Amino acid sequence: MKNTSVDDWAAKVRGGDVRAISRAITAIENHSPEAESLLKELFPCTGQAYLTGITGAPGTGKSTLVDRLAAYHRKQQDRVGVIAVDPTSPYSGGAILGDRIRMQGHAGDAGIFIRSMATRGFLGGLARSTAEVALLLDAAGKRQVLIETVGVGQDEIDIVRLADCVLVVLVPGLGDDIQNMKAGLMEIGDIFVLNKADREGADRLEEQLHAMLSLVMPRDGWHPPVVRTVATENKGIEELAVAVEKFRRHFEAGGQRRQKHVQHWESRLIEMLESRLLEKVLGGKGGEERLHALAEEVAARKKDPFTAVSEILRGAKSVL
Amino acid sequence: MKNTSVDDWAAKVRGGDVRAISRAITAIENHSPEAESLLKELFPCTGQAYLTGITGAPGTGKSTLVDRLAAYHRKQQDRVGVIAVDPTSPYSGGAILGDRIRMQGHAGDAGIFIRSMATRGFLGGLARSTAEVALLLDAAGKRQVLIETVGVGQDEIDIVRLADCVLVVLVPGLGDDIQNMKAGLMEIGDIFVLNKADREGADRLEEQLHAMLSLVMPRDGWHPPVVRTVATENKGIEELAVAVEKFRRHFEAGGQRRQKHVQHWESRLIEMLESRLLEKVLGGKGGEERLHALAEEVAARKKDPFTAVSEILRGAKSVL
Repeated sequence: MKNTSVDDWAAKVRGGDVRAISRAITAIENHSPEAESLLKELFPCTGQAYLTGITGAPGTGKSTLVDRLAAYHRKQQDRVGVIAVDPTSPYSGGAILGDRIRMQGHAGDAGIFIRSMATRGFLGGLARSTAEVALLLDAAGKRQVLIETVGVGQDEIDIVRLADCVLVVLVPGLGDDIQNMKAGLMEIGDIFVLNKADREGADRLEEQLHAMLSLVMPRDGWHPPVVRTVATENKGIEELAVAVEKFRRHFEAGGQRRQKHVQHWESRLIEMLESRLLEKVLGGKGGEERLHALAEEVAARKKDPFTAVSEILRGAKSVL
Repeated sequence: MKNTSVDDWAAKVRGGDVRAISRAITAIENHSPEAESLLKELFPCTGQAYLTGITGAPGTGKSTLVDRLAAYHRKQQDRVGVIAVDPTSPYSGGAILGDRIRMQGHAGDAGIFIRSMATRGFLGGLARSTAEVALLLDAAGKRQVLIETVGVGQDEIDIVRLADCVLVVLVPGLGDDIQNMKAGLMEIGDIFVLNKADREGADRLEEQLHAMLSLVMPRDGWHPPVVRTVATENKGIEELAVAVEKFRRHFEAGGQRRQKHVQHWESRLIEMLESRLLEKVLGGKGGEERLHALAEEVAARKKDPFTAVSEILRGAKSVL
């Protein structure tokens, strides 16, 4: 019975049924066991989608850019999935100012699926959830999956590393100098998007970017280009999509896409393992209370944290 | 013999010996077993330091601010430890443009200890290392520990949550609007620092900040103040230190500092547990190779990732 219903659910997801997909995302976010059964079932149908990660500081216009890219892909008759990840909100589960009234222009278009995600639960695991939702959308026939995340931290880097192609978005006038952009972003960017390119300082920023990129070793013969856009006016979007396509062909030709996928799955397996281990060790009934009691002892210096962790680990053997 | 040498090492750390502290930080960064023995030994002497976390977007002048705060505390005869965390550089282990020629003004002052940290190793764990270094500096008699991190991601939030008091730094002109600042930062800030307050737009930013803060529920009767600084000119630093002291007294009086410490130790224990579990399961000889082989099978769709993780977990029982 159970399997029949998972089969049925999986078939609906493959057919692009919006309610089946939404229900699956909720299951993934709640780390429910049925999500795992479903994704296991769907896994062989995945690997068809092209994942583009879009990251950049707050205020760079990522959402608008993603909106325009999505519209472009829809014009090419590609089905599109959008995952907007906001990991900066661990408490409220979303932005506090206004709701995301995103992409109203796509309302009623069944070929596009949009979902916002934020951290949940005391055990975290946002990168894992995002990755699982990307798999799901892949199985649901979305050929273009856009993953947007505000970015400079490790968590965002983990999230965008899921992607086949990473766009780093910059705008003129954010901060004094490009030196403020940290090495991590330079090194994960496959394509740099200079958005709001009609603003003052765009030429100077582009020059600086090129100068900085000339210091970074090209990865597998790819020199990250800089693409200028004005997303609000839909300018440069096609050029950007062309650049992504060029990157895709470059890597497919060189066989590096596979290598990147293996690296990707290494990170993913670590993520999943971490998440699974924690869930087993602390996720059960009374786990949160037990953690709290130990934390109290440690805070009072009655027990050192290493001993506390060893105690939890001793109990863990039986649950694995 | 082993214990004698750890005792000796711990004694030197307690005495503030710079080489002993540096050696301990290296051990912590390498997750070496002797780091654990040392910290276990030192743990009862900790809990004396006041930890201030400083976070904000790139370009807000955090480093200069930390420098000035450190100088202020030195004038008050407090010993100071500074941990500068840059989690955005998972590959190179540091910023690519220039070295941190930080705080040259403090050269030769034994009362201040400064260390930069970045992510290392395939199993991560930066928040854990930062927390352990903070414990170490606490044991080494630094009464003021300043933890600086570039911030918007989950990882930075994990890092600053270590702190007793969190300063969120903003500057006028970074992005169009305060709406770009995400909820996460608003919610972790105990004090907001409006740096570069001599710039155009400072008044408007302060108004917006107050408006936004009025929407956030005060935590335990504390209304986060906004302190204006021009760190490069040493303006507003004393006012900032006074605000931190006020916050400290507010929480000590209400007994909330203890509650915060318990929450802190809950996060810490999870971090440590996660890190310890991964290390046990994959950190041993051949672990990385095994992970790579499984990732290859998954990338080729020969095995689903859930089955791969289950296989690793089955092997894990024996190593716990």
